[in-house]
Amino acid sequence: MPLSSQIEFPGALRFAAESVERMMDRLLPRGETGESRLFEAMRYSALGGGKRLRAFFVMGGATLFRVSATSALRTAAAVEFLHAYSLIHDDLPSMDDDDLRRGKPTCHRQFDEATAILAGDALQALAFEVLAHEDTHGDPAVRVALVSELARAVGAGGMVGGQMLDLLAEHRAAEMAIGAITRLQRLKTGALISFSCGAGALLGKASEPLRAALGNYAHDLGLAFQIADDLLDVEGTSEEVGKATAKDAAAGKATFVSTLGPERARAQAALLARQAAAHLEPFGPAADLLRQAARFVVDRRS
Amino acid sequence: MPLSSQIEFPGALRFAAESVERMMDRLLPRGETGESRLFEAMRYSALGGGKRLRAFFVMGGATLFRVSATSALRTAAAVEFLHAYSLIHDDLPSMDDDDLRRGKPTCHRQFDEATAILAGDALQALAFEVLAHEDTHGDPAVRVALVSELARAVGAGGMVGGQMLDLLAEHRAAEMAIGAITRLQRLKTGALISFSCGAGALLGKASEPLRAALGNYAHDLGLAFQIADDLLDVEGTSEEVGKATAKDAAAGKATFVSTLGPERARAQAALLARQAAAHLEPFGPAADLLRQAARFVVDRRS
Repeated sequence: MPLSSQIEFPGALRFAAESVERMMDRLLPRGETGESRLFEAMRYSALGGGKRLRAFFVMGGATLFRVSATSALRTAAAVEFLHAYSLIHDDLPSMDDDDLRRGKPTCHRQFDEATAILAGDALQALAFEVLAHEDTHGDPAVRVALVSELARAVGAGGMVGGQMLDLLAEHRAAEMAIGAITRLQRLKTGALISFSCGAGALLGKASEPLRAALGNYAHDLGLAFQIADDLLDVEGTSEEVGKATAKDAAAGKATFVSTLGPERARAQAALLARQAAAHLEPFGPAADLLRQAARFVVDRRS
Repeated sequence: MPLSSQIEFPGALRFAAESVERMMDRLLPRGETGESRLFEAMRYSALGGGKRLRAFFVMGGATLFRVSATSALRTAAAVEFLHAYSLIHDDLPSMDDDDLRRGKPTCHRQFDEATAILAGDALQALAFEVLAHEDTHGDPAVRVALVSELARAVGAGGMVGGQMLDLLAEHRAAEMAIGAITRLQRLKTGALISFSCGAGALLGKASEPLRAALGNYAHDLGLAFQIADDLLDVEGTSEEVGKATAKDAAAGKATFVSTLGPERARAQAALLARQAAAHLEPFGPAADLLRQAARFVVDRRS
């Protein structure tokens, strides 16, 4: 059953989450060898939780270009492995020092710090291994393009660079301008979300204009997503959100909310979400789920 | 100037080290943006040191198959980025807790723990980015094969799995049999050395028998290398080796030396090195540098 058989977003998101979870379970290592503690830590952090929004974006983008379900699901799984690794490392004591993630103890609390670092490292490698495998796409040029774009999205010029900026942003709430915050978030979360939205176009060998349209959607959506995340940190409870909240203010971090105030931030997120949806015009009704996703991203309570 | 213009191993190793260092310098990010601390940490740990044995193996293997210098050097740089990341993470306080690496403070001592973790993460992504880039090879099928093999060599089923085993091996010197130690080392260091030796065959689209011959060389050489490393930990001084020594015994780690004793370990390393060189027979004199490398690996003092 393809994602496009769902016509309402909540069902489609649940469908994507369940499908990618099954694929991840198949792709993750298991076994009773001496290093099985590592496999357990990878499974603990990668499986059993999360909204799987990035997987949804991969699968939603893939339906626009008639990509096979296997290609879309394997790519979605790779993105979720990458995301899981980034959460494990972000939560470490020397980074954000979080005890709770998706309502469970973080990886280093459940296992130990060394195991958590290694589980993250191995999940990053697994993401590239899955993308490069011939089951992901019959054309090696497509597979290597996926690898190339993911590597750029998550390296020093993308996600990891953004996390470095984020750590340096502590205690600098007063000095950071909105431009600097936007750049930080575009790197830290935007780059992987952009990759997720655009992966379907790579898998489907889409024309340049359609790739660009999807890219613009991803860009605006990524920022809307982050503003919503900042709002949840201020307004959500830890029970709702599944992780510690009110952490940004405690760390003196500059965020969209600390700089714009909650009302303007909410308005900005809503504007970006509408803008994101507008970029999908060339796809017609086929992109309805992605349009609904843009609204969901800013309205969500967790 | 290709590597094959060198006929003696010490000069060839120096040539490979200098060439790959220049390539790495070009490929590493730099800039005055907010996250430049990350770039500095990546450069600090990746550049300016190390024997670059893995780069030599890539370049030495590549000369057997008339691979272009650029292809070989970019692949060698990717391997060295990967290796540098693994050293940064291995040195962390929650892992081996080392203060000294290649005669300099380790990355987390020079910067801080969070920056070191991120520098390692970004170097891993950079390795895959470099391999996937079209400058590395004109044929996408070759590039994606490199990505696929490297990802498998360094993930949960390879290097990271080996590091997990190594951490769990502390205080278990008495119980670990030689088979378990061999498996640990084959994963922890052997898999990346095998990739390095075999990369030239991938780049040069070698026939299966020649790939296998190089693979057998890599297998025996990897073990010889690790036994020599264990001997250096016991017999070398920290000044010679550039990192703390006598650490394995202090941590109660089972190694080839603790299990076999230094004399049998030395004999075993020499045997493996001779065996490795013998696998190179099909290549004739073209493989002379790789033969010399096998001897060097067991005779080195650092």
